[in-house]
Amino acid sequence: MNLNPIQLFDTESSTFTYILTGPGSNQAVIIDPVDHHWERDLRHLERLGLQLVYVLETHAHADHVTSAGKLRELTGAQAAVPSGCGIAPAELQLNDGDVIRFGDGEEIKVLHTPGHTAGSMSYIWRGNAFTGDTLLIDGCGRTDFQSGSSDALYDSVSAKLFSLPQETRMWPGHDYKGQAVSTIGWEKRHNVRLANRSREDFCKLMSELNLPKPKLIDVAVPANQNLGLPHGA
Amino acid sequence: MNLNPIQLFDTESSTFTYILTGPGSNQAVIIDPVDHHWERDLRHLERLGLQLVYVLETHAHADHVTSAGKLRELTGAQAAVPSGCGIAPAELQLNDGDVIRFGDGEEIKVLHTPGHTAGSMSYIWRGNAFTGDTLLIDGCGRTDFQSGSSDALYDSVSAKLFSLPQETRMWPGHDYKGQAVSTIGWEKRHNVRLANRSREDFCKLMSELNLPKPKLIDVAVPANQNLGLPHGA
Repeated sequence: MNLNPIQLFDTESSTFTYILTGPGSNQAVIIDPVDHHWERDLRHLERLGLQLVYVLETHAHADHVTSAGKLRELTGAQAAVPSGCGIAPAELQLNDGDVIRFGDGEEIKVLHTPGHTAGSMSYIWRGNAFTGDTLLIDGCGRTDFQSGSSDALYDSVSAKLFSLPQETRMWPGHDYKGQAVSTIGWEKRHNVRLANRSREDFCKLMSELNLPKPKLIDVAVPANQNLGLPHGA
Repeated sequence: MNLNPIQLFDTESSTFTYILTGPGSNQAVIIDPVDHHWERDLRHLERLGLQLVYVLETHAHADHVTSAGKLRELTGAQAAVPSGCGIAPAELQLNDGDVIRFGDGEEIKVLHTPGHTAGSMSYIWRGNAFTGDTLLIDGCGRTDFQSGSSDALYDSVSAKLFSLPQETRMWPGHDYKGQAVSTIGWEKRHNVRLANRSREDFCKLMSELNLPKPKLIDVAVPANQNLGLPHGA
């Protein structure tokens, strides 16, 4: 049965953070928390009477810093991160096909979806796909840094994400237009970058985006590879 | 079993709009949609393959205009509104204790919670309370216009909302601090305006707020009493 996550938003970087919790247990998982919102996020857990057991990252972000390390310290949760993202201090280095268990039989499946970064993972839980920056609502993440690859993103989306049940709800890592959620089926049919487009077309389109370098990348990536904690901490 | 709603946000008025949908049916209900987001909201319904059957209003808002009339026209949904709010063109005039049924056995209970406005309603669905501007996260709506009453709000919250199961998730009509959800139990214990406060204290506090008149009130209330449609339409 599909259960929606609790969706939180950072207006500065337009980043979504998700809290997942199922029936029969107060255990919860958080995905992609943002540094300056650690207190807001802890308060949500407290208000809802939830115990945080895992902090998940979809990748090492270039546009904002995670609060994973801080939340881990304050709650005793474990950090679970994609194995290919260089996030060394995390307890769990996730690989494609891994399953994260929490609560009363809740299961999160780990799906390796490289392209935005080489290590990027998507997480599948109860009919929901948390796609990070691999697949966005009517868009996708850029592929021009952090070992990004348009070829790899095309494969991740067309072969892996678009093969999920069509009604799967798709919760992106960012949105810049006030949108919250989509479905795999809608994106497969309508996504302006990826629906009904050949690999060649897609790679050409991505190579011509000419996006500016993210302002925070030189700070954010090393910080995120240390779970947002000061180096040496 | 608790099912979270889909929560959408209007950054201009900090208003939350909610989409409710249950298993076994594609029927959906929307609560408090905002005028300029009608297209965004329709697209969410389309992406998720949902059929809108009811547009609910918690009250006649003073700070933004509803898209209820527009959504009704475009989807064939019925408008369901509090009977005491002067929203004449709605199909359903709701009273305390009414039940709105949709989907495969989904039930929304109507709870009259006056105080912010005389007609204000809260809606209870699957362990969630949609409290409009009656109860906010760590706050409450103002009571100084539209037949508002601090006495009535005190009763609505302390006698009605705080009597719901303590784990009930509380989804407010607005939030100004990036918060998304709370619980009845947390608000009963910690809400800065209402937890452990006497009626006299609460009414004194509310009478001393000296808030400015909402900029849009003279336009928004008459517009909302016509479901956001031009008068004469």
